[in-house]
Amino acid sequence: MIIGKLPFKSDMLRELNKIAAKKGVKAGTVQVMGSLKRARLSFYDQKIRAYRELDFDAPHEIVACAGNISLRDDKPFVHLHLAVSGSAGIVVGGHCLQGCSVFAVEFTIIPFHGEAPRRVVDNDTGLLLWEKPLYEG
Amino acid sequence: MIIGKLPFKSDMLRELNKIAAKKGVKAGTVQVMGSLKRARLSFYDQKIRAYRELDFDAPHEIVACAGNISLRDDKPFVHLHLAVSGSAGIVVGGHCLQGCSVFAVEFTIIPFHGEAPRRVVDNDTGLLLWEKPLYEG
Amino acid sequence: MIIGKLPFKSDMLRELNKIAAKKGVKAGTVQVMGSLKRARLSFYDQKIRAYRELDFDAPHEIVACAGNISLRDDKPFVHLHLAVSGSAGIVVGGHCLQGCSVFAVEFTIIPFHGEAPRRVVDNDTGLLLWEKPLYEG
Repeated sequence: MIIGKLPFKSDMLRELNKIAAKKGVKAGTVQVMGSLKRARLSFYDQKIRAYRELDFDAPHEIVACAGNISLRDDKPFVHLHLAVSGSAGIVVGGHCLQGCSVFAVEFTIIPFHGEAPRRVVDNDTGLLLWEKPLYEG
Repeated sequence: MIIGKLPFKSDMLRELNKIAAKKGVKAGTVQVMGSLKRARLSFYDQKIRAYRELDFDAPHEIVACAGNISLRDDKPFVHLHLAVSGSAGIVVGGHCLQGCSVFAVEFTIIPFHGEAPRRVVDNDTGLLLWEKPLYEG
Repeated sequence: MIIGKLPFKSDMLRELNKIAAKKGVKAGTVQVMGSLKRARLSFYDQKIRAYRELDFDAPHEIVACAGNISLRDDKPFVHLHLAVSGSAGIVVGGHCLQGCSVFAVEFTIIPFHGEAPRRVVDNDTGLLLWEKPLYEG
């Protein structure tokens, strides 16, 4: 398990990808918590097969998330979804993009020790999904 | 650890239960992330002791969750709560029911290797809760 | 891994801290799910460096969370963020305070076996953050 904090004012997603690469974590789960100076998320439009960007340009708490690491173009790639709350507690969420600026973020990575899944284009969805349905390790 | 993706257009909860049964995972944690074609959730009314169904018949991102596996009627049973976001990022959530249709869902199961908790009727709440307060393994 | 349920009508955060202390878990991750009789959360105001309290005095489902354990004043300390949904499914969230009353809560703790992080005052944020950027174990 790898736990730590991200640098103040850094880009959350970029930092997580750097840590996965530096530590050689090709697959695993990711948890983040803490607070952001601003959040930049997206929603995948299933009909037109494109991400719609959602900008929340204000401080938010990261209240929950779901995240994993796998290989994309042979490199560790962090896939992260976030639920973030504003000053009144209202929660918005989506697929995490670069542009989430760290106020204070704590992370936990649990590495997966089996074969690392690789992302390839999926015809049903237009997304980059894993080649196989199941991996154990 | 078991990681994988669920079939396009399948029922999320049914698939997770099938995987837990097939892999013999009697206890553990479950994470899901990705997107649904529609979400079917519920809220437990603590006064009348019944679930109120909440249908969100539109595409949603699964932005976060909390889930576990334990035994119910001697079979692996997935208990899953979801936070899902719509196209503007607004998040709704609840107890996951059958009827959540998969667009693209990635899952992670971390098996628990101690004694598997069994669900029994709890008189204080009317819910099926674990027999013992604590399990280690 | 430690899994279990919290006592009916107990204080969620207080119980989790008691379990971490009793079981000697100095570091790790925490997941909770279930339902609360009421939720007491907070939002950190990054400008004035103070928590703003958010009280939701009604039953809510815990739909997702992010949580960890580390040392504060040499004692195990649970840091927990919650996303909770009301009867119509609307999700609010924030930093979990004492005052979240348990209706039915299931928890999972995954201990971290490396050096336990210690919380110290961080000048950039005014928060108690970990001393080092990264811990492995």
